Amino acid sequence: MQAFFAPHSVAVVGASEATTKAGHVIVRNLRALGFPGAVHPVHPRLTSLHGYAARRNLAEVPGDLDAVVVAVPRERVPGCLREAAQRGVRAVVVVTAGFADAGDEAGRALSAELQALVANAPFRLMGPNSIGTISPADAFTTSITSQAPLPLGRVSIFGQSGMFASGLADLVRSEGRFGVARVACLGNKLDVDELDLLDFLGDDPRTAVIGAYLEGLSDGRRFLALARRVAARKPVVLLMSGRSELGRRAIAGHTGALAGAEAVLAGALRQAGVIRAEDLEDLFDLLEGLGHLPPAAGRRVAVVSITGVGCVLAADAADASGLSLPPLPATCLARARAVYPPWAPARNPVDMWAAIERSGVERAYTVLAEAVLAEPEFDALLLVFTLIPEADFDAAALVARLRAEHPAKPIAAVFMGGEAARLQAWSLAFRRAGVPVYPSPRRALRVLAALASPSRPTARAWSEP
Amino acid sequence: MQAFFAPHSVAVVGASEATTKAGHVIVRNLRALGFPGAVHPVHPRLTSLHGYAARRNLAEVPGDLDAVVVAVPRERVPGCLREAAQRGVRAVVVVTAGFADAGDEAGRALSAELQALVANAPFRLMGPNSIGTISPADAFTTSITSQAPLPLGRVSIFGQSGMFASGLADLVRSEGRFGVARVACLGNKLDVDELDLLDFLGDDPRTAVIGAYLEGLSDGRRFLALARRVAARKPVVLLMSGRSELGRRAIAGHTGALAGAEAVLAGALRQAGVIRAEDLEDLFDLLEGLGHLPPAAGRRVAVVSITGVGCVLAADAADASGLSLPPLPATCLARARAVYPPWAPARNPVDMWAAIERSGVERAYTVLAEAVLAEPEFDALLLVFTLIPEADFDAAALVARLRAEHPAKPIAAVFMGGEAARLQAWSLAFRRAGVPVYPSPRRALRVLAALASPSRPTARAWSEP
Repeated sequence: MQAFFAPHSVAVVGASEATTKAGHVIVRNLRALGFPGAVHPVHPRLTSLHGYAARRNLAEVPGDLDAVVVAVPRERVPGCLREAAQRGVRAVVVVTAGFADAGDEAGRALSAELQALVANAPFRLMGPNSIGTISPADAFTTSITSQAPLPLGRVSIFGQSGMFASGLADLVRSEGRFGVARVACLGNKLDVDELDLLDFLGDDPRTAVIGAYLEGLSDGRRFLALARRVAARKPVVLLMSGRSELGRRAIAGHTGALAGAEAVLAGALRQAGVIRAEDLEDLFDLLEGLGHLPPAAGRRVAVVSITGVGCVLAADAADASGLSLPPLPATCLARARAVYPPWAPARNPVDMWAAIERSGVERAYTVLAEAVLAEPEFDALLLVFTLIPEADFDAAALVARLRAEHPAKPIAAVFMGGEAARLQAWSLAFRRAGVPVYPSPRRALRVLAALASPSRPTARAWSEP
Repeated sequence: MQAFFAPHSVAVVGASEATTKAGHVIVRNLRALGFPGAVHPVHPRLTSLHGYAARRNLAEVPGDLDAVVVAVPRERVPGCLREAAQRGVRAVVVVTAGFADAGDEAGRALSAELQALVANAPFRLMGPNSIGTISPADAFTTSITSQAPLPLGRVSIFGQSGMFASGLADLVRSEGRFGVARVACLGNKLDVDELDLLDFLGDDPRTAVIGAYLEGLSDGRRFLALARRVAARKPVVLLMSGRSELGRRAIAGHTGALAGAEAVLAGALRQAGVIRAEDLEDLFDLLEGLGHLPPAAGRRVAVVSITGVGCVLAADAADASGLSLPPLPATCLARARAVYPPWAPARNPVDMWAAIERSGVERAYTVLAEAVLAEPEFDALLLVFTLIPEADFDAAALVARLRAEHPAKPIAAVFMGGEAARLQAWSLAFRRAGVPVYPSPRRALRVLAALASPSRPTARAWSEP
């Protein structure tokens, strides 16, 4: 599997001078990222592309060759695979679509032909209909859309969608949500499937958190056994679509053995320690939280909020997520009183507006956050901000310091409103400081609850990578 | 009530040269917005503020005075109300906090004193602990945070939170989510409450859509009767917090008669035709959709998506929202085939990637969107985009044209990923074109389902304002 993410050399069959072609963009991305291995564009007539010498076919590629990306019309894919087998390559990504995903007989016949070829081949095949992989630490990608470098990190994502190596990768990068270890787009799963990826990422020292999007399981029993083993060491977040009849019909060509048994599957996945995501938004919320924060020792949360509505919605959301909001202990209350006017109540959730009016926004956040973090009664802290000019201060510096002083306690932030540009700047700064950011208490507390699940790996195992 | 939103003259008691004081910001905002009425800063020693002549007390304010904003320490609020009563003003907003919301006996006593004063006063009182109102068409605001002008529109919001006139107003403005008619922050609801606002906005010609955030109902029975009457003419979206025991405890000083009877309330609100929002994010999602789109004639949706994962997640979400995704009728299929390669299936949800590769992104979106909109079998259209450079075209112009050609059919967009800056630019352009934008199929389809509810007002009534 390593050759899918960090090959020593890669050939791109279907390399093209036409800038809209996948074979063009793949080579351009490798050049732009500065991939240190050998790159061989393959095209019958091209002599070079983006400064790499082109070859007429795989046989003419000099030296060792361990990975091939195939981006030619579907009829020519079987021939490419035969050439790849002769060269003894280890990994083949087939970008081309129109096989089991097609609506026609020819697609199905070609898919069967690929299947037979792979059964006897020396290589593993990702796809067809796959955008392939990204591995930032190796400056490697097979994405067919323009890719700027992703921030390096410990979150890996794989699944049956090219979005993880295209639009969603752009979003993660530009919003700075989390750093990335590996991305893999499985496409039709003709050979490499979720079992391979989960197994590989479970042992991958670069990967500390695993996110997956699946439209069905190739082998439910094996997946559950494997997931249990991996989830004991690293958090595994799974978004499974096709929960509904409409959804299952939309998954063309999907015949997963467990489809339709959502209730059974849900219980089994929970027992295996897999975190279920509700949708893509939830998947990325969870990956951001798990990517930045340690596990929580328990479910007791302190909420410190600039706005009363934040307190009330946090209380409702804590209840829905199975978290508790214990009262402030006496020592904490005494410290909090120092920033409040005498008449104002101090309780958890902490509505801090009166403290801000009396003591200023920076002092109020600092004193109140430190007061609750010092208490063993609280396992996690949620800070709620609203980004109005009147509440401006270097909050990113504060949360960076709090994270450093309390490394074992998860701290998350909610930004309830504010100007879009300010929201974006603060979000980037907070995430750089290791604090995940959410638009509502509900979404933040959902993540803190996942961090506090008793089946989560311990902090020690978690921080190993 | 009109005097709360469009007074001819307003006095600000507690006006101050200290830029952090509420009384300073309120006067500065009125100057910045160009409020056309008379503005009278009131302060014992000030001669002028932001170019307005200051007065020592309300008695010295010349001419007619119909509104007063009170931003003085709580002990001095009762005196201000007596002065306001003597001047015969119609509307008083009390910004000052520390009454029923305070934790002390003095606060409760002051609250009772205010109550007695209001009972015999010629004016209505909003607050205390209220940021007050915004009315863009009247260039009026009493907000205590810096306010740039909100885009003028037909959505009105009121509730027990100052956020609607501060951080959330900034967000709505900078993201261009919808145009605003009126904003009111009710604070402690000592006098003016949700009944007054719902009644006023129900008859307000500027308001076509009403959103409310409440932490309890002053009079559940009257609210339901009124909501039924108003919701028959304009959509009413309600976020009620305090659903959980934790939430109810967080609502300090709240003793609503219906608290705790969430199940009963939920049924009654549904029967009254009120749309329930799950949280603030959902409230604003719904207001954006209702603010831009007509009601849907039914629940049959066509989904046209650049990405397969968008199709599958849309199918799951449609099922969860009680929407159907009928197959493409023969006429539609024939038009769709023109942009697809022969092998690619064309079905609803429409996975358009193969069509894009064959026909280009602009032609594929145009032909497929027009094909489904022309069919009476579909009541609404969801367009799913991913904002990668390879899929760039003037999509805002396309959706503006589609909206103009099919005014009775709701069209919503989902942007699944893309660079943050591009997402922001596209979102603004789409919203200007009258098409709401969501980050996931789930959130978009939830709104389309609300537009299709049988209890919604008809398109005719809806478009009246």
